[in-house]
Parts: sequence; C-alpha cells; structure tokens
Amino acid sequence: MEVPLVGIVMGSESDLPVMREAAAVCAEFGVPYEMRVLSAHRTPGDMAWYGRTAHRRGLKVIIAGAGGAAHLPGMLAAFSPLPVIGVPIPSRYLQGLDSLLSIVQMPNGVPVATVAVGAARNAGLLAVQILATSRPELLERLIAYRNQLQRAVRQSNRANPEFTPIVLPPGWEEPPPWEGDEP
Amino acid sequence: MEVPLVGIVMGSESDLPVMREAAAVCAEFGVPYEMRVLSAHRTPGDMAWYGRTAHRRGLKVIIAGAGGAAHLPGMLAAFSPLPVIGVPIPSRYLQGLDSLLSIVQMPNGVPVATVAVGAARNAGLLAVQILATSRPELLERLIAYRNQLQRAVRQSNRANPEFTPIVLPPGWEEPPPWEGDEP
Amino acid sequence: MEVPLVGIVMGSESDLPVMREAAAVCAEFGVPYEMRVLSAHRTPGDMAWYGRTAHRRGLKVIIAGAGGAAHLPGMLAAFSPLPVIGVPIPSRYLQGLDSLLSIVQMPNGVPVATVAVGAARNAGLLAVQILATSRPELLERLIAYRNQLQRAVRQSNRANPEFTPIVLPPGWEEPPPWEGDEP
Amino acid sequence: MEVPLVGIVMGSESDLPVMREAAAVCAEFGVPYEMRVLSAHRTPGDMAWYGRTAHRRGLKVIIAGAGGAAHLPGMLAAFSPLPVIGVPIPSRYLQGLDSLLSIVQMPNGVPVATVAVGAARNAGLLAVQILATSRPELLERLIAYRNQLQRAVRQSNRANPEFTPIVLPPGWEEPPPWEGDEP
Amino acid sequence: MEVPLVGIVMGSESDLPVMREAAAVCAEFGVPYEMRVLSAHRTPGDMAWYGRTAHRRGLKVIIAGAGGAAHLPGMLAAFSPLPVIGVPIPSRYLQGLDSLLSIVQMPNGVPVATVAVGAARNAGLLAVQILATSRPELLERLIAYRNQLQRAVRQSNRANPEFTPIVLPPGWEEPPPWEGDEP
Amino acid sequence: MEVPLVGIVMGSESDLPVMREAAAVCAEFGVPYEMRVLSAHRTPGDMAWYGRTAHRRGLKVIIAGAGGAAHLPGMLAAFSPLPVIGVPIPSRYLQGLDSLLSIVQMPNGVPVATVAVGAARNAGLLAVQILATSRPELLERLIAYRNQLQRAVRQSNRANPEFTPIVLPPGWEEPPPWEGDEP
Amino acid sequence: MEVPLVGIVMGSESDLPVMREAAAVCAEFGVPYEMRVLSAHRTPGDMAWYGRTAHRRGLKVIIAGAGGAAHLPGMLAAFSPLPVIGVPIPSRYLQGLDSLLSIVQMPNGVPVATVAVGAARNAGLLAVQILATSRPELLERLIAYRNQLQRAVRQSNRANPEFTPIVLPPGWEEPPPWEGDEP
Amino acid sequence: MEVPLVGIVMGSESDLPVMREAAAVCAEFGVPYEMRVLSAHRTPGDMAWYGRTAHRRGLKVIIAGAGGAAHLPGMLAAFSPLPVIGVPIPSRYLQGLDSLLSIVQMPNGVPVATVAVGAARNAGLLAVQILATSRPELLERLIAYRNQLQRAVRQSNRANPEFTPIVLPPGWEEPPPWEGDEP
Repeated sequence: MEVPLVGIVMGSESDLPVMREAAAVCAEFGVPYEMRVLSAHRTPGDMAWYGRTAHRRGLKVIIAGAGGAAHLPGMLAAFSPLPVIGVPIPSRYLQGLDSLLSIVQMPNGVPVATVAVGAARNAGLLAVQILATSRPELLERLIAYRNQLQRAVRQSNRANPEFTPIVLPPGWEEPPPWEGDEP
Repeated sequence: MEVPLVGIVMGSESDLPVMREAAAVCAEFGVPYEMRVLSAHRTPGDMAWYGRTAHRRGLKVIIAGAGGAAHLPGMLAAFSPLPVIGVPIPSRYLQGLDSLLSIVQMPNGVPVATVAVGAARNAGLLAVQILATSRPELLERLIAYRNQLQRAVRQSNRANPEFTPIVLPPGWEEPPPWEGDEP
Repeated sequence: MEVPLVGIVMGSESDLPVMREAAAVCAEFGVPYEMRVLSAHRTPGDMAWYGRTAHRRGLKVIIAGAGGAAHLPGMLAAFSPLPVIGVPIPSRYLQGLDSLLSIVQMPNGVPVATVAVGAARNAGLLAVQILATSRPELLERLIAYRNQLQRAVRQSNRANPEFTPIVLPPGWEEPPPWEGDEP
Repeated sequence: MEVPLVGIVMGSESDLPVMREAAAVCAEFGVPYEMRVLSAHRTPGDMAWYGRTAHRRGLKVIIAGAGGAAHLPGMLAAFSPLPVIGVPIPSRYLQGLDSLLSIVQMPNGVPVATVAVGAARNAGLLAVQILATSRPELLERLIAYRNQLQRAVRQSNRANPEFTPIVLPPGWEEPPPWEGDEP
Repeated sequence: MEVPLVGIVMGSESDLPVMREAAAVCAEFGVPYEMRVLSAHRTPGDMAWYGRTAHRRGLKVIIAGAGGAAHLPGMLAAFSPLPVIGVPIPSRYLQGLDSLLSIVQMPNGVPVATVAVGAARNAGLLAVQILATSRPELLERLIAYRNQLQRAVRQSNRANPEFTPIVLPPGWEEPPPWEGDEP
Repeated sequence: MEVPLVGIVMGSESDLPVMREAAAVCAEFGVPYEMRVLSAHRTPGDMAWYGRTAHRRGLKVIIAGAGGAAHLPGMLAAFSPLPVIGVPIPSRYLQGLDSLLSIVQMPNGVPVATVAVGAARNAGLLAVQILATSRPELLERLIAYRNQLQRAVRQSNRANPEFTPIVLPPGWEEPPPWEGDEP
Repeated sequence: MEVPLVGIVMGSESDLPVMREAAAVCAEFGVPYEMRVLSAHRTPGDMAWYGRTAHRRGLKVIIAGAGGAAHLPGMLAAFSPLPVIGVPIPSRYLQGLDSLLSIVQMPNGVPVATVAVGAARNAGLLAVQILATSRPELLERLIAYRNQLQRAVRQSNRANPEFTPIVLPPGWEEPPPWEGDEP
Repeated sequence: MEVPLVGIVMGSESDLPVMREAAAVCAEFGVPYEMRVLSAHRTPGDMAWYGRTAHRRGLKVIIAGAGGAAHLPGMLAAFSPLPVIGVPIPSRYLQGLDSLLSIVQMPNGVPVATVAVGAARNAGLLAVQILATSRPELLERLIAYRNQLQRAVRQSNRANPEFTPIVLPPGWEEPPPWEGDEP
C-alpha cells in the first residue's frame, strides 16, 4: 500500500457527503490519500498529534473540512508546517458564511488555503496542483483535465438545440484550444 | 499572593487595550486573576497545555480574546472543562463580524460564552457573576454595582439641562429602585 | 423535590423543540432545573418579576432562548444579578443573525453569555460548567463527558470503512487521551 | 408649561448628539416634548415604570434611541400601549446593523416603528405625522415643510453653476408643485 | 359604508398572503380600511395619485408592503403627508434583507415607519396605535389585547406538562398583571 | 436568418432555467439573439475570443449570467467594447450575494450593467431598452409593454374581491394613465 | 448648444463629488449631457415629470445616483422607457450596501443597470457604450480608451523598479495587444 | 539571476503596499520571485498570456491580489494549471467582503487558494509551504519560522509587566516546545 500524500480530515462524520469529493479527486489523479474524522473540539489531542506528525508520516498536503466556528483547518495549520487546505462546510443556519470567515481570516504567520463553501472537489484539485509543482506527470494530467472541462462545455452547446450555433463570417477562425486541445 | 481564579488570555499583545478592561473588572471586585498572551496559532502547544492544566492550577473561569479567525476561546474550551468566555476583538477590515462568528458558532459539546465585539469589560463581569454563584459576597457586590449604574443614569438626567425633568401628576410616586436602592 | 438551580425560559412555546435540549443536558448531569415560557414582549411584568426574584428563589443560572429582536436574555440580565446564557433561536427569514446580534451585542455593565444559533444543548453544558466551578463532582462528570465525545469520534473512524486507518511508522505511539481517557 | 405629547428617551447620554435632532423637530413644529436618558439595561425598573405610565401622563408617542442590542424601544413597546418609534443608534463596530435588527425585528403583537440608522430627525417627523392624524394644523405644517424641502432642491439647481438648466422645448410646461407650492 | 381610515397597499398580488394579516388586525379592532395592489414600478402614476390624494380622501395611515428594491412605502411617504408604515416582504433570494434596507433607510425629511420582515400583523397594530392617539376607545382595546397576549403565555405554562410550575417560597406573591389584568 | 443583436451567454448549462427568460424577452420584442454556454473558468480561451469578436460579428449587447465567483460578465466586459449586462445567478449556499458582488463591484474603466439576482427577464428588457435608443419602433413597444404592466395591476384590483374598490369623492378624477394608456 | 443625450441626476447636492465623474466621462467622449439634483423623496413630482418627459426631450440614457433607500434610479426607470443606470452612493453607516440593494433588486418589468458603489465614472462609460451601439465613432473612441488603459498598466510595470521585468525565454513573443494597439 | 518560482501579480499599482508583503516573505525564505501589475480588466490579453505561459517559464506558484469584483486570481487559475493563491485586497466601501467572495467562491474545476482580506504575508508563506512539499530545506526553515513566532509570544509575556507570570505548582513542567524548540 502506498504512503498517503494527502490527508483528508473532517470535523464530523456528517461532513462525509461533502468531503468525499476531495477523496474522489485524489483517486481520479492516482494520488494516494487517507481520510478520517478529526475534531478540533471533541478530539483536540488527536488533532494536535495529527498536525505535529503529519509531515513526518510522509503527508505533503492536508485537506480539512469544518463548519460553524470551523477551527479544524486553522488549528492543523498551527500544529503542522504543511500547506493546509480549508473547506468551509455549509452550516445549518448561516449557510456557511460563519464557516468561511472562521477558516479564511487567519492571522499573519499561519495561512489556510481556503476554497469555496462546500467545494471539497476544488480542495482535492488544489492538493493535486500543489503536488504537481514537483511531479510533471500530474501537471500533464491537470492540463488534460482542463481540456476535458472545455470540451464538455463545447459539447453542451452542440447538444442542446436551445443553444444557437454561431455562424462565423468568412475568414473567421474557430476559438483557440485551451492548451493544444483538439488538433 | 492569591491563587488566580480567572485566567485572562489574548491572541496577541495588540489586544491588550481591549482586554485590559477584563482585568480592571476583576480588580474592582477583588477577584484574583492572571493575564497573558496565548496564541492558538503561534503557540498551539502552550495553548493546549494552558487549557489542560487550568482547572488543576485553581482557575475557575477563562476569559479569552481573539480577532479574525478567532480560535483561541474555542480551542481553550476544547482543552479545558472550565467555562470559557470569548471576547471577539474588532478586526481590521470586517469590524469583528468574523471574530464574533468564529467564536460564538461552536458545535454541540463545547460551548463558548460569547460577549459583544470588544466587550472585555462585560467578559470580566460575567466571570464575576459565575464566581458569585458560590460566593454570596460577590453577589452583593454585583447588586451594588447595578444600583450604581442606575444611580449614574438618574444623575445624568438631573445634571444635563437638556433633559426635561418629569413633572409627575399629583399622587404619582417615583419609579422603584433597582434592588432596594436609595432608601 | 429539589430546588431548581437552572431556570430555562423561552420567548414562545414554539421555541420548545430547540430549548428542550438545554433541559435534557441538565437532566443528564443531574442538575435540577425549571422550564417555562416567559416573553419579554408579551409578559414584560412577569419577566421583570422573574428576573428580580430568581436569585432569591435559589436559581444560580438562567438560560433564555429568544428569536428575532430577541430581548428576553438581555432583559433578564438587566433585572437579575445571575449569569444569563442567551440562545439565539433561528428566525424565519434572517436565519437567526438578527437573534444573535440582538442577544450578544449587550452594552457594558450587563453581559449575556451567548452561544451559537440554536445551540440550546451548549447552553445547558455552559450552565453545568458554571455550576461545576463550585461542585467538583460536576467537574468530574464534565471531564467524563468530554472523554466520551472523544471516544465517539475515534469509534466513527473505526466503524466506517471509508475512513483509512492510519498506519503508524515503527516507534510512533498513539495520540494521547483527552484527560486520562482509555487507560 | 405644556404637557408633553412626545417622550424622547435614549439608552445613554452619549446618544444625545443623534437624538437631539428629534427634539429639534418637535420644537420646529411646536409640539411639546420631554427628553431623558432611560436605559433598558441599567435602569430596567425606571424603564418599565416609564412605559407603564406614559399614556396616563398624557404622552401620545414615544421616541426611543438605542444602539447595539438595542432593547429600549422594544421594551417600552412591551410596557406601553402607545406607538413607539425606534432609532437605531450607529454602533461602534457593526455600524448600527445590530441596532437596526434588534429594534425592527419585533415579534407579532408588539410593533416598533423603526426609522433609518441614526435618523432621529425622521423619528421626530414621524411623531409629528402621528399627532397630525388628529390635528389638522399640524398636517398643514407638514405639507408646508415638504414644499420647503422641494423648494430647497430646486434652489440648489439654480444656485450651482455645475447644474445644467433644462431647456424645455416650446410648449412644455414646468413640473407641477408638490402640493399647491409656489403659486 | 364607513370611510376607510387605513389604506393597505402592496406591490404585487402575490404579497396578499402576508399583507392580509394587516387587514385582519383592522377588522379585529373595528377600524375601517381599504386594500389594493399598487406598484411603484408598474403603476407609478396611480401610486403618485394615491399618495397625493390619500389624506384628502379621509385616510389617516397608509400601510405599504413591498419586496426587493421595495420602493412603494418610501414613494408613498414622498407623495403623502400621512404616516406610512412599511412592511418588508420576504424576498426570494436575499430573505428580505434587501426589502428591509430599501424601506427603512429613508433620508432625512421623509420617514417610513418600518416593521419586521413579513410582519404585516404588527403593521396593522401600529396603525391602530396611531389611530388610538386620538381615539380613547381604541387605546382601551389595545390594552385589552395586550392583557390577552399575556394570558395566553400564562396559559401555555399551565397547559404544557413540560413546563415546570414555579413553587413560590412562603410570603412571595404572584407576578403583577400587565395593566390591571385578572383581578 | 437575421444577424443576432444580443448575445446571451451563461457560465453553465444549469443556468438555462434562469437565463432562458432573457431570450424570451428578445423573442417577445422581435430582437434577434443568440444563446450559448460560455465559461470564464472552463473555456477561458473561447470566452476571450467571444468578447474580442462580438462587436465585429454584429452584436450590440451582451447578456451574461453567472453564479458564485461570477467572472463571466466582467471578463466579457474586459474583452469587448460592447455594453455587458450581468445577471447574478442565485448560488447554492450564499443566495447569490456572492454572485451579485462579484458582478457589480467592477473597477473604474470596465463597467458591467448589473440587474437583480436571478433577474434574467430584466436583463432582456434592458437590452431592448439599449437597442431602442436608436430604434424608435422598439421604444414604442417598450411604452406599450409598460402600459400593459399597468393594466395588469389595475385588473388585479378589479378581479380579486379582497381588494376594496376606491370610492372617489364627488369631483375626483381617476388616476392618470402611464403614457396615454386607456383612452 | 447641443441637445443633451445623457441626463445625470442625483438625489442630493452632496452626491456631486461622486456624480461629477459621470459628467467628466461624457465630456471626455464629447457626449452632450445635463446634470441636476432630483430627489425621489423631496421632489417626487419633479422626478415623475423628469422621467415621463426625458425621452421626448431627446435624452437617450439617464444616470441616477442615490444613497440609502436609494429610490431615484428605480423610480425614474418606472416613469421612463429609457435605460436608467443606477449609481449606489456610499451611505454613512452601512457603506452603500443599502444603496446597492435598493437600486439593483428591481422587480421584473423595470430594470435598472446598476454599477458598483460609488462608481459614477463607470456609469458614464456605460452610457457611452449604450450610445455607441448606434454611433460607430463612439465605439472607436471606446476601443482607443481601452488601449490607453492597457498602456497605462504596462507603463506602471516599466516605471516602478519594484516590478520585475519578465525575461522571456528565446522564441517567446510579447503578449498580444488589446485591440490592434501599439503597431 | 535565478528563474523565479513565484509570480506575484496585482490588479493595480495601488495594491503594492499590501502585496509587497508577499514579496518580502519570498525574500526572507530565499525563494526567487517576480512581481508585476496585471489587470484582468484593463490588460485581459496580457493576463491570459501570463496565465498560459507561467508554467512554461518555470513558475511554480502564482500569488494574485485584487479588490472589488476581484477577477484576477480566478482568471489566472482558469488560464494556468499552477496553484493560484488569491489575496482579497480591502475595498473602499465594502471592506473587502466583495473581494473575498469574488475570489473564494470559485466553481468546481478551477480552485483558488484564498487567504484572509489583506493577508499578502500569509500568501507568501503559503507559496513557501507549497514549494516546501518538494524542498526539505524550505520545510526546515518553515519549522524554524514557527518556532520563532512562538518565542516572540513567550517573550511578550516576559517583557510586559502587565502580564502575570504563571506560578507553577510543584512538579509541574513548562509547556512543550512547538517543534523541538529551545533545547
């Protein structure tokens, strides 16, 4: 079994439907990961231990999701020198605005890389981008993934009859590919 | 020197102008306290140690002030079984709304008793009220303090000529005292 | 019948599904309590009388839940020298942000210990923590409760196959218990 | 001395620079008023007494200004059957959004007529409008006041050379007066 | 048929489920009213005409409900010297925060008496309170209404077994009535 | 087939239920349009090409709908000299407040004409209004459309028995038409 | 003197420092304009007249700035078939969030083209863009203006020694011009 | 001269006082960087070119600061496969809440790693953390930096006489170091 490079943690098992998307991205890109519940408030000792040992166990990036007074990402960032990505979990009454501000407004010295409310998929992609800074094959896969996103949009336009095909004037070329796409 | 009953901590020395007011209240009511900087993000180990040992050192209440992604009160509440009072320090850009939400929106199991943005004086009073639940002489002092607040408002009305004295119709009595005040 | 130590009040009978959780905590910890509807706006005289007499009837802490222009906690704090815990009830249109600000933003002199929107369970725990400052057996139960919270999180990780077991390198110990937990 | 028809109260003497404008309007319209400090939190008994007796002392309208967890207008509305006008005083950190929500979000049964943040002048005008529902001479003065507001705007356009005079096409008339203005 | 004293208008027929409550209050208190759709944006001429003629048709108070960029209350206030009560209708996406700010934040000179989001019932009560400033029988009915609200709360406490009866110490009296209630 | 004058684009095919209303307005007013998916984030090259060529393909106005960090309207405005109308699509957690601010708060030099959250119908009307500045027949149709809106409101009042017909005093005329309506 | 094509109006003379920028843009692009104070609340009759006659006096676009419960843009849009551009004036306490929501959240049928808080310069540019849809020489000037904005940014990079010049690898070309710029 | 690993860009030269801190961190950690103005709205072509070529020029991370409708970070993320760190620049009227939401609320597929409003220093640290995932010597320096932050807090407590030294009970040890600090 491969040593995990990405640690995905969440404040509560009820965050799993959101956070599972981060794991799915890692799997898509072939990046080994681990996933567990880790609560800053209910298991503060485990959390401190996780943060202190993460880089020595081989992890390169931590993804942490939490809601409300969402302390988990910031506290892991306080205990670990690794880059920590924070996912604001949508909260019951304040729609995740509390989660977002609790995660992103970190003081100088201890950053958390925050993504959108509920955006665990983007947290996974950001982790892959970070790993890709030293893994050229991951960078290639990221470029391919972006081209695939672009193809899907173009396909929507062709498939749905409500969308008007653009009639180009003579001499006008098609829009350019994202990155060498569709030769 | 008396063993401190109230621990006043703040995330940064720059919070002192706000947090000093909590200490002033303790002094006014004769409650021994200690005060120090303790950062959840810059000194997470000290913070965990402080939380874990507070009740064994004799502290009864912790007052914690922090701004932005204000994790200090919630993390002390996670590491300590004592009641923790959180003071949202006004933040530079978002006026303390981030501090307030980060402190007050704690998950089930780990409460923080939150006061108004910048209200360290009220945090001190709340600590005294908590101690007064088992110290009758403190309860007496709190009642006297409230009567003094009331007297000050009444005095404002008498001292400022812009304020109209209320002419009572014949037979109308004066408003009642707060609690046996001004016999 | 025991004299209640905690008075749980709410602005409307419709707040009962939320506020009942505060009573449940008191029952769990064996703390005698009373519970009733008390409206600052519809029964202002009863409310004032409740606040003025609470400490003379033996109450030690008041928990008050209210929504919208939630005046009940703050007015009880004005009429009583006891610590008052405010529970912002989620409001119909503004999601409890109005309730939260109306409760927490108290002026100097009269604090309300505010918990999260809808967090009546935490209000009950905070009341127990306050009582525990002079009742060592309650402090023991609070520590046990926290250990139980921690065990539940650890159990989630063992029970759900989606969560990856952490393979520790040789020589690495387990994370420490919260407070003497699991010997 | 005339019996006051309007009671102007404020939570703190520091609200006087804002609330003084309500008194100025009453004076402009020849409406007798009284003004005083009355704190829902520091003088709750006086406040309750004020609310309970206001209509028996001859007051017809109460104007109450308060900031933060601004309970004064709503509590006077709870203790008095008179119409209560609430003025949200700008707060130090949250710019009066807390004051506004605390005042306006009253529950069914007990309304507060809320004006804009800091708008004590409008509170005074609203009190005059309420009195004018049974005093035709006040209605006349209100109409004259509105015509005066209109004249002032028109005068701005004539006096400032940056404002372009509108050249009407032949046969176009001038805009109509507000209410019989400028014959 | 009696001449209406209260004009109830709303920006759209879809506001009727909310605004109907204002009419219900008028009916309860025996106050004649009229109700219609009147859109500041779709029928600006009708709206101006309504505002300009309201006081000459015998109306004493206008209640206007509107949502989003809710201009109806403020524009009627601009065209009429009568007191205008504004009801922020809950909006689809921003929960009525836009409606509230658009209605309450009126400039100096032209107030709108704003009630809570969706609080048409309170708008009706405020209209009755305004009329009661010169109709003593309405004031009596308002006091009776308040006593009825209080009785309903007390009845809740007696009827629901979850609510604990308060055991008064010997010599303690019952709380005072709101206003001569329950002799 | 006519050359489109209005380009309607949206960041995702899931925005179609909202954006379709803009197309419907164009169809109602006989304005030729084209519609397609165009994502600033997934097809940035296509988006840049679309913006750069729009005015050379004969488009006069661009309507762009996007949600969350809604960059599409602003980026088209950056790449095109045409007027760009932005439609904030309601977002899942923050109700479109994020979409609104991301679209409207453009820096000096590059405006976006922003409409209400979800208001694609109004975006279509605004496009027609812009085209009408040089097409008198469109201006006539817009005036007719407004008169039709007014008639619909008046019809509501006649059709619903809950709405009270206004009894005019003798000598009072009916309100004026919007613009020569109902002769 | 040329007939004005753009009408610039503002709710108060105090808005002139902001709104003057819209006039400056018109002057830069050689577009004739008029400017005046026009208050929806203090001069509602003038405002209605202005809206009703604007298109018959030759105006093509209206720019309206207002703060707080900013009704001017929306009411002009209700009285006029012309495109109306709304400028939210920063408000004293709520920073223009009230102005923004009051202007942008218009109901279906009556749009206002809203720009950023305080962005009168962009309102002027948007008016020019609207006029340019039928005036090719204005479109040319807009393109030139955009190229000038781009040149200014590039010049910043050359002039400030803190900015690092980019060393292009062999064979890499310079970034493309905005629109045929810098031949 | 070393090939830059971090590209620091900002939407306007006026953002330099904030963004300079990101450059200072790179310099402190010995990480080569480049810095320039790059506006998504004024230089969209340059921006697209920058994004498309960044990874081929050797950059590993992009830090982008922007305010208001802050599109720069998100658009660079759309044009580049590199990790992009977004710094919300405080805006003039809405205090950076608009900048924050415009940057962080990115759709699935294209993340931006967002830091706190104005937190360019943390953006620099995050870039160093990202580079450190494959550069062990940078990880060492990050750990040393964190120890230095901790020492500074401890030093504050020793230096300021307002801070009470904690008297440890016999047998109690000092709090543990952050990571092997202060042997």
